Amino acid sequence: MLTPAAALDAVRGAMRPFDTDIVPLERATGRVLRQAVRAERDQPPFDRVTMDGIAIAYDTFARGERRFTIAARQHAGEPPRALGDPGQCVEVMTGAVLPAQADCVVPVERIAVADGVAAIESGYAAERGQYIHPQGSDHRAGTELLAPGAVVAPADVAIIASCGLTAVEAAGLPVMRVISTGSELVPAGPPIEAHQVRSSNGPALLAMLRQHGFDDCAHEELADEPALLRDRLARHLDEASVLVLSGGVSMGKADFVPEVLNALGVERVFHKIAQRPGKPMWFGIGPRGQAVFALPGNPVSTLVCCRHYVLPALLHASGRSAPPREWALLTEDVTFKADLTAFLPVRLACREDATLCATPAPTNTSGDFASLGGTHGYVELAQDRSHFPQGTAVPLHRWRLL
Amino acid sequence: MLTPAAALDAVRGAMRPFDTDIVPLERATGRVLRQAVRAERDQPPFDRVTMDGIAIAYDTFARGERRFTIAARQHAGEPPRALGDPGQCVEVMTGAVLPAQADCVVPVERIAVADGVAAIESGYAAERGQYIHPQGSDHRAGTELLAPGAVVAPADVAIIASCGLTAVEAAGLPVMRVISTGSELVPAGPPIEAHQVRSSNGPALLAMLRQHGFDDCAHEELADEPALLRDRLARHLDEASVLVLSGGVSMGKADFVPEVLNALGVERVFHKIAQRPGKPMWFGIGPRGQAVFALPGNPVSTLVCCRHYVLPALLHASGRSAPPREWALLTEDVTFKADLTAFLPVRLACREDATLCATPAPTNTSGDFASLGGTHGYVELAQDRSHFPQGTAVPLHRWRLL
Repeated sequence: MLTPAAALDAVRGAMRPFDTDIVPLERATGRVLRQAVRAERDQPPFDRVTMDGIAIAYDTFARGERRFTIAARQHAGEPPRALGDPGQCVEVMTGAVLPAQADCVVPVERIAVADGVAAIESGYAAERGQYIHPQGSDHRAGTELLAPGAVVAPADVAIIASCGLTAVEAAGLPVMRVISTGSELVPAGPPIEAHQVRSSNGPALLAMLRQHGFDDCAHEELADEPALLRDRLARHLDEASVLVLSGGVSMGKADFVPEVLNALGVERVFHKIAQRPGKPMWFGIGPRGQAVFALPGNPVSTLVCCRHYVLPALLHASGRSAPPREWALLTEDVTFKADLTAFLPVRLACREDATLCATPAPTNTSGDFASLGGTHGYVELAQDRSHFPQGTAVPLHRWRLL
Repeated sequence: MLTPAAALDAVRGAMRPFDTDIVPLERATGRVLRQAVRAERDQPPFDRVTMDGIAIAYDTFARGERRFTIAARQHAGEPPRALGDPGQCVEVMTGAVLPAQADCVVPVERIAVADGVAAIESGYAAERGQYIHPQGSDHRAGTELLAPGAVVAPADVAIIASCGLTAVEAAGLPVMRVISTGSELVPAGPPIEAHQVRSSNGPALLAMLRQHGFDDCAHEELADEPALLRDRLARHLDEASVLVLSGGVSMGKADFVPEVLNALGVERVFHKIAQRPGKPMWFGIGPRGQAVFALPGNPVSTLVCCRHYVLPALLHASGRSAPPREWALLTEDVTFKADLTAFLPVRLACREDATLCATPAPTNTSGDFASLGGTHGYVELAQDRSHFPQGTAVPLHRWRLL
């Protein structure tokens, strides 16, 4: 049976890269960049005044002059003015272009203005270049500010806008289908019989995919009937490039998903991973390269497998650079005897010494999704150990921020 | 001057709670719950079979019987069948209701079926109740599964759906306006003169607000002209309940925002916070209770102030329970001599011992937003110290996951 690491490699390796889209800036947050974003201009684009005050020629000050006739006023956003005469000054505002011939700004707090003349306080020691942010000192035009593979965050939006771009090249979003299988499933809303189960995997999978921007994603529920499954899955394979199924992949008599997918020409890449929950996961590639993730139907398994395999595969096909890894300390002893990697949902807290601590969410069974409320993700307990004492550092996979 | 903590208390204290909305489940992710979500039924709602196999009466097995005539087959999602006779069995599938009279499931791997009779392998030791997940053993009907104040995550969507709810009560979204002021600003797209600056705060603020679900948010750019500002801000105050401005709040000659807001009846709660960047921040409350955040216009200041004050105020008014705090270790010595709290953008990494490490993003000035690319948030350096050696644990505020 594959290890989780080998399964992750397999799903990533089997994905075809998504196309590139032109994405308007206002919808770029969360998208994966496919281009470098380069500075449009030097930053600052001009010698920029950083204090309200007066701009002067330092040499005049150095010769002992302390009174400067105000020749003009220079606001932010105005074309540069000039001293005209090195004995004059220009009133300047923060953010303004430094007036021509000036090379020193004296703050407004250090001057007194009367009759159109600014007098600098006695004893004030000015320096050449002070309160001036020189052109290009942050970066030069053409500098790469964001690299391909970055996931666009709000701060990156500021950078993109500052480069004058109203749109960026980013990974396209695949056409997706989420398909919940199970004759026992009844959607939220209508009354339910005692022997039936509310359908919850579909809404949760949609939420997780949309949270990462994958929103071209329709949902369908299907009973465990081979003819129906074949008919509907054939259609979805025609229309979509990524299918995420839940249920129907164990070895039970009503678990028809693998054989139906096989009949539809979806080539199995693997079936089963040495992990709990989520062991029965199935993954294959359709005739047109469609990625087909068939996740086990137990709600905890479904969520863990989506977070652990589906999202990384989608982000890999988007071209995202590999994200850094995280670890957390277990706050209690954990024993897990099965010869499998365990994925254990946890609640996180951070200690004042900057250590992440993970408290296992008590789960009765892999169907006991109610205990997932408030969890931040899950930790990974290695297959080759059974006992994980309190304080053990284990790999952490999040599905929400603290 | 207010400390950041006092300013945060002030903005939270001044916010009026937002109304409550009924939010369809498919749009509930990221919203703040205003109701408890309680279990619709016992979980499991019936004694649930956890293995494919046969269901039998344990007493018959205990009397020595190993051959059971198959009376029926019980799939998941079907109403319960019955053994009929305690010497018979029912074939059961994972997820099925336990048939009446049965109290033991023998896995399919332990039986051989021939001529309608299931024979249990010799030496197999069954136990009463095995492979049965008893009704209500995860939780009872009516148990509170999610509390008011939770931010809905994908796993919570599964819980809400499992409770049969197609919609939840959640905090309403305020009508918002983002207003960038500055005569030097030119939006991305058209050509730009040397003395002008690309408008980047508006798009970044919109991105940050929308990332947290606050998407009823129009954007406008305004020149530093008092009459124009007064006219447009009066209109926005009429139409919206939260305004987020950037620029025009320093003490410069073109910084008209505080006086214009004052003239429009917006009562100042504070102006200036003892922090860098972001010191000139202004906050007030309008005649109808509108919250008006006027952030400094330097891009780093704008983002830090939005993350530090605007988002917490919005989430407080939404009724979100207080989120846990985080800390990170500085990876290098930092010196900050001003008598202010410093907010220093950082890139995070997690060590294998579960320690979060923060590397300061080299920022030339508070206008040097390009260095924000790839940052995960910022750390808070206390006002009463100047030297923060490598390895110091400092409070962390994130704006993206690792």
